[in-house]
Amino acid sequence: MAALVPFSLLRNYSPFMLARPFIVKGCNLNFSKSVLPLPCRRLPFSARATHDEQAAAKAAAATADSGAPTIFDKIINKEIPSSIVYEDEKVLAFRDINPQAPVHVLVIPKVRDGLTELAKAEARHGEILGQLLYAARIVAEKEGILDGFRVVLNSGPSACQSVYHLHLHVLGGRQMNWPPG
Amino acid sequence: MAALVPFSLLRNYSPFMLARPFIVKGCNLNFSKSVLPLPCRRLPFSARATHDEQAAAKAAAATADSGAPTIFDKIINKEIPSSIVYEDEKVLAFRDINPQAPVHVLVIPKVRDGLTELAKAEARHGEILGQLLYAARIVAEKEGILDGFRVVLNSGPSACQSVYHLHLHVLGGRQMNWPPG
Repeated sequence: MAALVPFSLLRNYSPFMLARPFIVKGCNLNFSKSVLPLPCRRLPFSARATHDEQAAAKAAAATADSGAPTIFDKIINKEIPSSIVYEDEKVLAFRDINPQAPVHVLVIPKVRDGLTELAKAEARHGEILGQLLYAARIVAEKEGILDGFRVVLNSGPSACQSVYHLHLHVLGGRQMNWPPG
Repeated sequence: MAALVPFSLLRNYSPFMLARPFIVKGCNLNFSKSVLPLPCRRLPFSARATHDEQAAAKAAAATADSGAPTIFDKIINKEIPSSIVYEDEKVLAFRDINPQAPVHVLVIPKVRDGLTELAKAEARHGEILGQLLYAARIVAEKEGILDGFRVVLNSGPSACQSVYHLHLHVLGGRQMNWPPG
């Protein structure tokens, strides 16, 4: 079963990482010092996040078409705790445990129904796709970011998709940059 | 009417910019030289794009709730030429003239119907929202990037929305980074 759980998610749910969410590998940070050494003050945080996500995405892609359950199934079934922001009959929205903005929520269909990724969508999925996008708007309202938020959907490894259960990212609470990754 | 056309789009559609799509303001580029000076080789292209988009987004937000036509109406009505990738009864998809990836296509509803931005979506918009996301998948297939693509939807100025007619960005053809802007 462990092989089915993407590395990034295992990392995300590690108590070690939860206790030290801002650690940057390869950079000997010591936050008790008042002044960080220059190379650490100019942290390549985005680059590090990018490479972690790219590696996770490549690993996840290897089992993308297996139809195997993902970590989202455990979240839907409440086997793994999550911070739920919104839920209805078809959709679940919960906080990303590795947030890239002050607000970062994932919106997923409760039943995957073949939607491992957007690339696998068929015309019959139109209804749930619309419900997911509308749920993203509900999440933005609940989180108080209706005045500015970005929705991102990654399909495939080159887009950094790391869980093969279609999901939208809802990000806000800061100025988003362009290009979008 | 000019006041209703976002700055970024005017810039995008300027024949001057079309002739020199990769010019970077503030950096005296001369592509006839075989070796660029170091400060220009390390171009702050992303930062420049970000600031342009942020400025354009702020300017566009000023008339967001006016209900006035946008440049997309001119594209839908074929008053402004565009490179159309996909079209059906409800949806139009055309290339972004300021692409942020080898493939960068915008997907819009042909009738705005109050959808200036996702923040304005109501439950009744679910159907068109689903059609737009499914059209993004069709675009990815037509563009040969079904193995990896990112869909981005910006709502509001802090997300860099620069045209107040809801639209999805479909990006691919390169490794996308994380975070997504």
